Amino acid sequence: MTLPTLLTGVVPPVCTPLTPDREVDTASLVRLVDHLVAGGVNGLFVLGSTSEVAYLTDRQRAVVVDTVVRHVGGQLPVLAGAIDMTTPRVLDHVRVLTEAGADAAVVTAPFYTRTHPAEIARHFRLIAAHSPVPVLAYDLPVSVHVKLGADLVLELAAEGVLAGLKDSSGGEGAFRSVVIGKRSVPRAFSVLTGSELTVDSALAMGADGVVPGLGNVDPAGYVRLYTACREGDWVRARAEQERLCGLFGMVTAGDPARMGGSSSALGAFKAALHLRGVIACPATAEPQIPLSQRETETVGKRLAAAGLL
Amino acid sequence: MTLPTLLTGVVPPVCTPLTPDREVDTASLVRLVDHLVAGGVNGLFVLGSTSEVAYLTDRQRAVVVDTVVRHVGGQLPVLAGAIDMTTPRVLDHVRVLTEAGADAAVVTAPFYTRTHPAEIARHFRLIAAHSPVPVLAYDLPVSVHVKLGADLVLELAAEGVLAGLKDSSGGEGAFRSVVIGKRSVPRAFSVLTGSELTVDSALAMGADGVVPGLGNVDPAGYVRLYTACREGDWVRARAEQERLCGLFGMVTAGDPARMGGSSSALGAFKAALHLRGVIACPATAEPQIPLSQRETETVGKRLAAAGLL
Amino acid sequence: MTLPTLLTGVVPPVCTPLTPDREVDTASLVRLVDHLVAGGVNGLFVLGSTSEVAYLTDRQRAVVVDTVVRHVGGQLPVLAGAIDMTTPRVLDHVRVLTEAGADAAVVTAPFYTRTHPAEIARHFRLIAAHSPVPVLAYDLPVSVHVKLGADLVLELAAEGVLAGLKDSSGGEGAFRSVVIGKRSVPRAFSVLTGSELTVDSALAMGADGVVPGLGNVDPAGYVRLYTACREGDWVRARAEQERLCGLFGMVTAGDPARMGGSSSALGAFKAALHLRGVIACPATAEPQIPLSQRETETVGKRLAAAGLL
Amino acid sequence: MTLPTLLTGVVPPVCTPLTPDREVDTASLVRLVDHLVAGGVNGLFVLGSTSEVAYLTDRQRAVVVDTVVRHVGGQLPVLAGAIDMTTPRVLDHVRVLTEAGADAAVVTAPFYTRTHPAEIARHFRLIAAHSPVPVLAYDLPVSVHVKLGADLVLELAAEGVLAGLKDSSGGEGAFRSVVIGKRSVPRAFSVLTGSELTVDSALAMGADGVVPGLGNVDPAGYVRLYTACREGDWVRARAEQERLCGLFGMVTAGDPARMGGSSSALGAFKAALHLRGVIACPATAEPQIPLSQRETETVGKRLAAAGLL
Repeated sequence: MTLPTLLTGVVPPVCTPLTPDREVDTASLVRLVDHLVAGGVNGLFVLGSTSEVAYLTDRQRAVVVDTVVRHVGGQLPVLAGAIDMTTPRVLDHVRVLTEAGADAAVVTAPFYTRTHPAEIARHFRLIAAHSPVPVLAYDLPVSVHVKLGADLVLELAAEGVLAGLKDSSGGEGAFRSVVIGKRSVPRAFSVLTGSELTVDSALAMGADGVVPGLGNVDPAGYVRLYTACREGDWVRARAEQERLCGLFGMVTAGDPARMGGSSSALGAFKAALHLRGVIACPATAEPQIPLSQRETETVGKRLAAAGLL
Repeated sequence: MTLPTLLTGVVPPVCTPLTPDREVDTASLVRLVDHLVAGGVNGLFVLGSTSEVAYLTDRQRAVVVDTVVRHVGGQLPVLAGAIDMTTPRVLDHVRVLTEAGADAAVVTAPFYTRTHPAEIARHFRLIAAHSPVPVLAYDLPVSVHVKLGADLVLELAAEGVLAGLKDSSGGEGAFRSVVIGKRSVPRAFSVLTGSELTVDSALAMGADGVVPGLGNVDPAGYVRLYTACREGDWVRARAEQERLCGLFGMVTAGDPARMGGSSSALGAFKAALHLRGVIACPATAEPQIPLSQRETETVGKRLAAAGLL
Repeated sequence: MTLPTLLTGVVPPVCTPLTPDREVDTASLVRLVDHLVAGGVNGLFVLGSTSEVAYLTDRQRAVVVDTVVRHVGGQLPVLAGAIDMTTPRVLDHVRVLTEAGADAAVVTAPFYTRTHPAEIARHFRLIAAHSPVPVLAYDLPVSVHVKLGADLVLELAAEGVLAGLKDSSGGEGAFRSVVIGKRSVPRAFSVLTGSELTVDSALAMGADGVVPGLGNVDPAGYVRLYTACREGDWVRARAEQERLCGLFGMVTAGDPARMGGSSSALGAFKAALHLRGVIACPATAEPQIPLSQRETETVGKRLAAAGLL
Repeated sequence: MTLPTLLTGVVPPVCTPLTPDREVDTASLVRLVDHLVAGGVNGLFVLGSTSEVAYLTDRQRAVVVDTVVRHVGGQLPVLAGAIDMTTPRVLDHVRVLTEAGADAAVVTAPFYTRTHPAEIARHFRLIAAHSPVPVLAYDLPVSVHVKLGADLVLELAAEGVLAGLKDSSGGEGAFRSVVIGKRSVPRAFSVLTGSELTVDSALAMGADGVVPGLGNVDPAGYVRLYTACREGDWVRARAEQERLCGLFGMVTAGDPARMGGSSSALGAFKAALHLRGVIACPATAEPQIPLSQRETETVGKRLAAAGLL
């Protein structure tokens, strides 16, 4: 399908199941997509950070987007990350994912290089000019080491360069500036929060949707949360959100003395999907450190406490 | 050729000349290699940060390494950067550059992801295990946002995982720890500084060589500096180094209100190579901002002051 | 008065009016306090960052707390910042502000030094052990360069070391963890947001109150916002919050090419108070850069747009 | 005495010995000064970071400077840190240390506040305008979170605002820019490195002196190193420097899982001074974590290996 005029709702960043020898497990990936669709999500975002895009080879990235686009068959919009260091490399990814049928490209500011705001603007303009599909900006300072300014985002939205924003910056003040500012933008512009923990707040402010990594584990929970917010039932929304906050505690399952935050969080999401029977193997990509048996058990306890096991 | 048992001397990171439409200008690249060889350098490092590796597509990277390896024809060792976010992606680059005939791979810690020292160690071990050529670590915190610890580097050196270190971290204290520590490592391990400004200091400490971006512009100057240091003529070395420090001032040619540090520094190196008649076009890759006519003139003045124009 | 068992509501950080020669203007300070009390606030926080505490000498700090405590005369609780680098220096400030009659001390983690979480915990425990008044933690990573972890805050709350938290970290996810976690703390523990822009969100999550710098300029607005939230009227709350977001835009009045963020934001608050006739002089402390006439006019426009001039 | 026209040589930052109940141990402080003078140092720097200035109350700071100035009795210049957040607070310290007889004030850029280069320049200009003694800039980004630019330092030197620079930024490239640039400054301007590990490099570049924290433990070693450099005996200098690098390893004595870097490094210096019989008690100020018995033993081993025990 093509991207809706305004993308809204729950659009989880889809985990990439791997086999024990770290190839894409397409059978598990298809099952995961079915699990998300059954949960009622409104779109899928493949090749995001939660998808371990930084670890997937170009061949594996192509397998992922191809598998998901074909399986979804136009039921839902499929957004795909085109995550690389600079404009020319991003454009190569945009070409591949567009040919595979993705409905939109999700792009960060340049990274690895030292970047100026004027260069970030030029980057997005060049990509939009050459992309056959709409482009969403991905604001992820923890990885990119730059924060996209609200003014820059709104300027690019007004120009038609950006069709939306996925904000994983964690700064609710700047996020609100975009949400308020976009009302003066004379084009559809979709503002999505990447936060798992403040979805009710973001929607109450006026955000259009949510891209929650934890939505892999409990898509139905985020859909219920989204629905409650849209119905203005803030009491029900808060209860659902707080249940999901408890579940989110799984991301600290891994011992910080032994592994980094990605290993722990992505390892926990995959352990949970494995324990729930969705994917065949909880392996994360190299050089991430696997969760121990004991750490996996704490993930299981979180699932049980949230009523998911 | 194969990498010498211990790589020493001046090994400039080779700029990647581009055509006005941002394709690799192989004719200029060959002229640049000749210019460096004529300057007396001891090796070449292609696809480093100064080579705009972050901006080159995979196809362009292959053109660069192929062009340089063929042209050099074994006269000098050719090191090639395998710069990407994580282990599997780096290994894809290692494969390509090895097939093209590069003599060593230069690899950073993972970036974009949040990384733990145990994951960094695992990353280098996996890469070395699968690389047909020796692996050097590239310490570049300004891009990677992590500093390689001296203990980790020395441990990997002792294991035979790393054949060398290119240190562009700017921290001379930690660099010295590696230089002193490597004497207890029972294997050849080449310690190279990436600094343009403290080459005499690094060599006086006991470093094996230097990888100066500015060496594109004045390879003979760095060779004279290296020779003076090796001969223990610290007065001559300091005079040469200070001349090069003055020349290095070109990296601030670009207005910081208009562009980032990469645009300014790489733009200045390319402007200087263009003014000296080595390359056909001073263009840098997108989305970098070009130097203005006036900024280019300040580069020319630096060249003239250093006796190079 | 003594601190209420649970501090709630609007507790603005009180600006410190200065004379043209940078002495504390006590007459203006008293008028500002009257302006805040008339606006309906629930407490006052003197010697916070908005109060320019970092710029006030010890003598000036004593004048401020003494002036405000006397003038308030027990109508409202007065919290006072004890802002300094480490435990012994903070304790000196606690002593002075307690003797002057402040009802609580507000304390950051150590700064300037390189600090470990165990040292931060020890710091708060030692301060609480020696403070005659309750201690609130002040989480301000932009100044302190450390983020207080939710687990640490909750542990110190459970021990009775901390009576509350003022969170100016801007991270709503961690803030929510404290708000949810505090329900399991068997003691009164007041969680206050320092955000001007997401007060409705914070209160909807369950926060107890707000410490808005902009509350100096429009205390009645924040009181209306707080009241609407407490009454569960989220539509009215959002409208009021958005009006205040527009007003908050004044903090970017100062040209970033000429001055830092503190000069601009604190300069704007003081310009607004001066334009509204509350304080006699808009001067900020040295070495801050004053707003120009033209920049001051943009503050006036923000006031007019918000119905305050 | 007054500061010499150009301060040169070894100027250790003097540790502040404490009693077990964390009062200044003036008897030990006097013994430490005698130990440094006997080692042949050229000046003393009290109330620097190594002196735990961030932990000392104003009363304790006054005791330190008073004790040292009186005991030295004009034999050597005494520099004193005036370390605080902003201009007015720094000026209060300058007043006290000047009255106590210090010969120069050492001052950082503002910290805790968000600062612009124009504000940093204004800060130093205001302080110099009001200080009865010469002012040296202290560049310590690890504490101040700002790096002083070479251009700014040289501009303030040329104006006569700064009499010198103590550079503890660890960046040898920028340091060299100052060393080279100062030759064009038409006034005496003393450039001192704060590094313990690259003193030979700094002096070879043209630096005037060194302010080594480790100089508390082995002042005679740094004096020998300085002398060898001044005599141009770079082989002897390097051998002495490398012995001191080995000794410096003591700063990692403390377990990083238990304590921060200051606790470990300052704890090690004090443990070494205690083991060498110079000070009565190795206690560091609150909230630092003390070294364990076992960690103290590793300090002893470093002393023994360096021939100091």
